[in-house]
Amino acid sequence: MNNPLRLGIAGLGTVGIGVLKILKQQSALLSIRTGREISITAVSAQSRNKDRGISIASFAWEDDPITLATRDDIDVFVELIGGTDGTAKTATEAAIAAGKHVVTANKAMLAIHGQALAEAAEMNKVSLRFEAAVAGGIPVIKALTEGLAGNTINRIMGVMNGSCNYILTRMESAGLTYAEVFAEAKELGYLEADPQLDVGGIDAAHKLAILSTIAFGTRINFDGIELEGIERISIEDIRHSADMGYKIKLLGVSQKTDRGLEQRMMPCLVPDSSPFAQLQGGTNMVAIEGDAVEQIALRGPGAGEGPTASAVLADICDIARGHLMPVFGQPANTLTKSPSAKSVMSAPYYLRMTIDDKPGALAKITTIIGDAGVSIDRMRQYGHANSSAPVLIVTHNCTRTAMDEALSAIKNTDVLGSDPVVLRIEAV
Amino acid sequence: MNNPLRLGIAGLGTVGIGVLKILKQQSALLSIRTGREISITAVSAQSRNKDRGISIASFAWEDDPITLATRDDIDVFVELIGGTDGTAKTATEAAIAAGKHVVTANKAMLAIHGQALAEAAEMNKVSLRFEAAVAGGIPVIKALTEGLAGNTINRIMGVMNGSCNYILTRMESAGLTYAEVFAEAKELGYLEADPQLDVGGIDAAHKLAILSTIAFGTRINFDGIELEGIERISIEDIRHSADMGYKIKLLGVSQKTDRGLEQRMMPCLVPDSSPFAQLQGGTNMVAIEGDAVEQIALRGPGAGEGPTASAVLADICDIARGHLMPVFGQPANTLTKSPSAKSVMSAPYYLRMTIDDKPGALAKITTIIGDAGVSIDRMRQYGHANSSAPVLIVTHNCTRTAMDEALSAIKNTDVLGSDPVVLRIEAV
Repeated sequence: MNNPLRLGIAGLGTVGIGVLKILKQQSALLSIRTGREISITAVSAQSRNKDRGISIASFAWEDDPITLATRDDIDVFVELIGGTDGTAKTATEAAIAAGKHVVTANKAMLAIHGQALAEAAEMNKVSLRFEAAVAGGIPVIKALTEGLAGNTINRIMGVMNGSCNYILTRMESAGLTYAEVFAEAKELGYLEADPQLDVGGIDAAHKLAILSTIAFGTRINFDGIELEGIERISIEDIRHSADMGYKIKLLGVSQKTDRGLEQRMMPCLVPDSSPFAQLQGGTNMVAIEGDAVEQIALRGPGAGEGPTASAVLADICDIARGHLMPVFGQPANTLTKSPSAKSVMSAPYYLRMTIDDKPGALAKITTIIGDAGVSIDRMRQYGHANSSAPVLIVTHNCTRTAMDEALSAIKNTDVLGSDPVVLRIEAV
Repeated sequence: MNNPLRLGIAGLGTVGIGVLKILKQQSALLSIRTGREISITAVSAQSRNKDRGISIASFAWEDDPITLATRDDIDVFVELIGGTDGTAKTATEAAIAAGKHVVTANKAMLAIHGQALAEAAEMNKVSLRFEAAVAGGIPVIKALTEGLAGNTINRIMGVMNGSCNYILTRMESAGLTYAEVFAEAKELGYLEADPQLDVGGIDAAHKLAILSTIAFGTRINFDGIELEGIERISIEDIRHSADMGYKIKLLGVSQKTDRGLEQRMMPCLVPDSSPFAQLQGGTNMVAIEGDAVEQIALRGPGAGEGPTASAVLADICDIARGHLMPVFGQPANTLTKSPSAKSVMSAPYYLRMTIDDKPGALAKITTIIGDAGVSIDRMRQYGHANSSAPVLIVTHNCTRTAMDEALSAIKNTDVLGSDPVVLRIEAV
């Protein structure tokens, strides 16, 4: 048996408490699996005396996470504070500089500062691991970095924000509006303190940026993501999509194209038969396509105390076993800068609008669409009680440029009752 | 950059050729990901001069895999010969004894000799890795051994034989009999040389035995698996199950019970809504339930040149990165012997039989079932052209013992037209 692995844990929220519980309850199992004892030396959190349902009396206490991160008697700094900058980042940098391994669940910090942190960790020959940062309990970082190390990755797709998926599936099942379900989710504690991180797609985009870096060997590029949240998805869109055989999901897609790396995180329509369409509530799924493996998909809980703590523990066990690896699967200084290509890949689109109920109105719209080189696959005009007729159009494959051209011409007509809603359709 | 990692590859069938291709095409990528060159020193196969579509002229040739396994100039022996005993095993033992790491895709050898091989590998401080042995391209061994290392595993379920799943889904979609699809699968090369390994459930059971050992820390116990093949599944059962809202799958289940480790590999009914029900053709899926992670599911191609080679490469990359670990995730000498418990877990059952079309026949059957303490959930009697009426029964949860008691009494009646078919229903 080797020396114990000594942890300093900063941040005792849901995930931190989950980690403490596993370390306490599974202590014997972890020792037998990793060949050494895993012990907690010290902890840090905002309040020392809060009742957490588990005693922290046997650990040293540090008011300052940075002091914790650099203690002589810890081997691993477990960063569960959160936040892009501020204490989380300063403490992580301090830990790395002091030669400590770091385990973090902080997707925001990595998506923005990943390159610099990875370079620092590799220079200091320490691990910087983050299984919990992407897709909760699903070991997708490990699958991609290690399990598929023999593959050139072609594409990654993922539903990676459980709160958004909860809102969208709940709107559908209960027939509630976005505003109603949003309020419900907030009440239930399903949303981040700043809910825009969830519903704006930012949290999911952070995760996509991390996966892209590992998959394609490109420097992390969060700003290169074409980002759109779910705030504008209406119950009408959910109903009409269902009527055409689709579900609406906040789907991330990342793939190499001739013009660079295309990264998208936006609400899309996926066919009912797709495994993505079947994800309920907080469940996440990531599909990875590699040249050798074809496609694998991983599904599981995207958040929560147990699942996220499980991912943190996986990283801790790897460090206990002495497994060292470059942060993003290859040395940070070999990651390339790839231009970000926006919507290069063509796709069918879903269009919803209301048009004036007068002769020639529909002809105007369809002519414009045809003139933009966009071909219509299916169209439905619904019965209606007032002077505006709801119209749904599903196009054949077209470029985003052609679609935008059609849209801007449509907006200039005098037959439109409301601004068109446009959603990409992903055949996944 | 470290020294090159030098491979000796024995067996140049589909998987071996796939490994050669990846090592050739991805050489630069593999170096950047593992920090060292991965090179092939020597190969061995049954015939040296066979046209394989890829040249082996630049590698040393060994007629004898055992000589290959012990060459001074290899670091890793890649065993792709196959077979429980014989050359594969002798060469693996020789490699381990000579201090070589071993990567194998050989589920049969591990399911039978895994304990002894693991002990030998650990004594010699070498890796013995086998990602390709279970579920093809899906990195399920890694997910279980490393990704979920912080979990007490409660249950594992898997559809892990693509040939069986091909046969069952093809029977359903084409309305063909078992014999017809079996012949077709043989013609297409979808079956092992000894097809009994596939359709008898043996291959899938080998995989389940391996997963059980890692999940529960128990010595590998292939003989403890309750095993049943798909040979007796008729098109009638597939149709009638579909009619009741189920699909038939060869499903493996492994879980700890009060009376020991229960391992089952048998055709089961799963609800149409289950992700297992939706698996088409050669696709595999494994679901793992842990106390912290709840449930994760991994889906992907279960066989084929690319996917299996991808898994072999994952193991090679781990070794190149210097990651060493006990073979089954904890030292082999700490694996416990667990009694094998057969069908402890109760379940609903599907029963199909034909009974004589005469007064009181159905009453006799249902009375017997009730007397055995088995409660009927749903029953259907179908219209018929002759004197025998097809009857379907779905029971509520009951023990296998109660079901067997009912069955044996049913067989003793004088109203039975054909032997009853009994299939377990798994709510997964």
